[in-house]
Amino acid sequence: MLLILAILPPMFALQSTSTRSRARRGALTTPHGVLQTPFFMPIATKGAVKTISSFDVERLGSPIVLSNTYHLWLRPGVEELKNVGGLHALMDWHGAILTDSGGFQVFSLEGLRKLTLEGVKFQSHIDGAKMMLTPELCMEIQRAIGSDLCMVLDVCTKLPATKEELESALELTTAWARRSKEAFHATREGSFNPGAQLFAIVQGGTDVEMRQRSADALVEIGFDGYAIGGLSVGEPFEEACTVLEGTTPRLPEAQPRYFMGGAQPHEIVAYVQQGIDMLDCVLPTRNARHGQLYRFRHDDLTKRDFYETVHVTNERFAGSQERLFQDLGPDDVEAVDDELRRYTLGYVRHLFRVDEMLGMRLASLWNVRFYLALMKRLRKGIEQGTI
Amino acid sequence: MLLILAILPPMFALQSTSTRSRARRGALTTPHGVLQTPFFMPIATKGAVKTISSFDVERLGSPIVLSNTYHLWLRPGVEELKNVGGLHALMDWHGAILTDSGGFQVFSLEGLRKLTLEGVKFQSHIDGAKMMLTPELCMEIQRAIGSDLCMVLDVCTKLPATKEELESALELTTAWARRSKEAFHATREGSFNPGAQLFAIVQGGTDVEMRQRSADALVEIGFDGYAIGGLSVGEPFEEACTVLEGTTPRLPEAQPRYFMGGAQPHEIVAYVQQGIDMLDCVLPTRNARHGQLYRFRHDDLTKRDFYETVHVTNERFAGSQERLFQDLGPDDVEAVDDELRRYTLGYVRHLFRVDEMLGMRLASLWNVRFYLALMKRLRKGIEQGTI
Repeated sequence: MLLILAILPPMFALQSTSTRSRARRGALTTPHGVLQTPFFMPIATKGAVKTISSFDVERLGSPIVLSNTYHLWLRPGVEELKNVGGLHALMDWHGAILTDSGGFQVFSLEGLRKLTLEGVKFQSHIDGAKMMLTPELCMEIQRAIGSDLCMVLDVCTKLPATKEELESALELTTAWARRSKEAFHATREGSFNPGAQLFAIVQGGTDVEMRQRSADALVEIGFDGYAIGGLSVGEPFEEACTVLEGTTPRLPEAQPRYFMGGAQPHEIVAYVQQGIDMLDCVLPTRNARHGQLYRFRHDDLTKRDFYETVHVTNERFAGSQERLFQDLGPDDVEAVDDELRRYTLGYVRHLFRVDEMLGMRLASLWNVRFYLALMKRLRKGIEQGTI
Repeated sequence: MLLILAILPPMFALQSTSTRSRARRGALTTPHGVLQTPFFMPIATKGAVKTISSFDVERLGSPIVLSNTYHLWLRPGVEELKNVGGLHALMDWHGAILTDSGGFQVFSLEGLRKLTLEGVKFQSHIDGAKMMLTPELCMEIQRAIGSDLCMVLDVCTKLPATKEELESALELTTAWARRSKEAFHATREGSFNPGAQLFAIVQGGTDVEMRQRSADALVEIGFDGYAIGGLSVGEPFEEACTVLEGTTPRLPEAQPRYFMGGAQPHEIVAYVQQGIDMLDCVLPTRNARHGQLYRFRHDDLTKRDFYETVHVTNERFAGSQERLFQDLGPDDVEAVDDELRRYTLGYVRHLFRVDEMLGMRLASLWNVRFYLALMKRLRKGIEQGTI
């Protein structure tokens, strides 16, 4: 048994570290594919990237999507997930899936929400039903989802918070992480995805010392990877960088690090430079639905102005022959480009003006394409020593 | 010149007529492809089939889409259409386009609407602006759209109507058809699509004698094809059949006949059996957006129950492993099937339950696929003498 474990390749293989920053190139092996790091995860909260099918995600070239334990728990529910064989089967998605634990969603709910040592009591945002999420249940749901990369249930503290509030939240986060790990391994048998991995979530607000204590405690328990949670909640971008600067060095070199939450393209570059390997963000699809498109302006990702956002509904794009698709060079062609390069900004603007959902869809396809291309450029930049 | 005309193939070539009904097999040649008749046109009223791109329409295997003069006139407008090179360029659509004249839309508008010999005055449904549509302007707009198959501006009478009302509407429809034809040929020069064809629209309500008078008058003027308008407005299906039964024999054998307006699958079969070559219908996409799916039950299209409609949101499809896609046999494979055959009814139901637009899109792709497959079966049935 020990011998077998010894010859298994490590789940995360660090390939190189930049000499110019803490940026890292690696590969994360999951039961549904090898993911080149750093990577970005399109968000499929409720089992679909908005307006985009799993067929489309493949065309876009993303090897992973992110979904949400809380949302899938409510609908379709654990029983239906178990019956159909998990989320991979439900979506017919052959790539990897990471599931957020739902802690953030539960703590964000308005109204009744009560924290106990056992777990968190709350009311469903759909029908007001009283529910309780515990670390153990959270693992059971993620096993039913068949997620490749599971997240522990964490305690999210509303910022600003006092040192005392942060401390008691941290204590509980650590205790829940330990329980999550035990429950995760206890539910491995008979799950759809026995090779799944479990990530812990470092909390501690914008207090670097707290973050370090949280990281140390979680590393001592030992997880397959570590996420930085509780950021991107309105704090200045520089504070998130300061937190990362103080936290990532405390995390094991040989394991993947995941920055949770929204990030504009230049923020993604900064987080990767702080040693982040995985990111997700709702902005490419959400902004797309409001007619906002991302475009590269030049190749130097270390300069803040390497990209622009274009409001396609703007009058200046009336009848524009400029393409929605932007040529990203011969190394960066994906199957979806055949479709994207056909449409002009003038057409996309027209679709938004006449309320055709197709406009949202084309913009979403493009923005996800942009974020994935950004990650490809970042990976190449790390390899070439420019990041 | 006469010689050149003589060796040009006819735009419409009738290949065979059924011995069991008036159903016809033919081929209609347009500047953007040869269309096998009878055919169905997916509706792209405002320049997009709802949730579906021109890339998708190609994958679905439709050689034509239908758009609307009135809607495109308002947005993006004639100037923008001219600037971009017409609707084919705007949508990047390489197949054929038929445009309805917008008469039906204008006459359907609530509020101020005044009919004169010159044209019809009305208020825009967008901003209330006072506008006037004349036969001449209608042709100019369709030339700017670059439509392959243009429709004359007709007078749509609200049913029920008195004989006098129908008569005066018919008189005007005929006069406008003549003016439309003159204007259409006058604007051929410099248009995006000089090889476009013009169809007249037979009116007359559910009065067969009126319909015959309308048809005779229009045939005397002479058009490239003839549409039957003003039906599918709430009258019983049998009345529409009676109208067709009395009208199609008055139309030239050698020219295509287009039934305008919505039709359920069994109605399409009946209309084709009355000698109809072209149809459109908003039902496949509209019903899809309400979670209603069409499915074949058996192969005998002459039996009313050859299809069923499935409400995918129904509880019985919770976790259903049944496929959205239905195997239509080896002769009927389209590029879109690769995508459609991946998803289960259980997944589509889940998407509707959690308000993911992707559900509407997958259902729309499927229903259009169904209607196109129905037409393929009808064409085969006519060839084999079963229709």
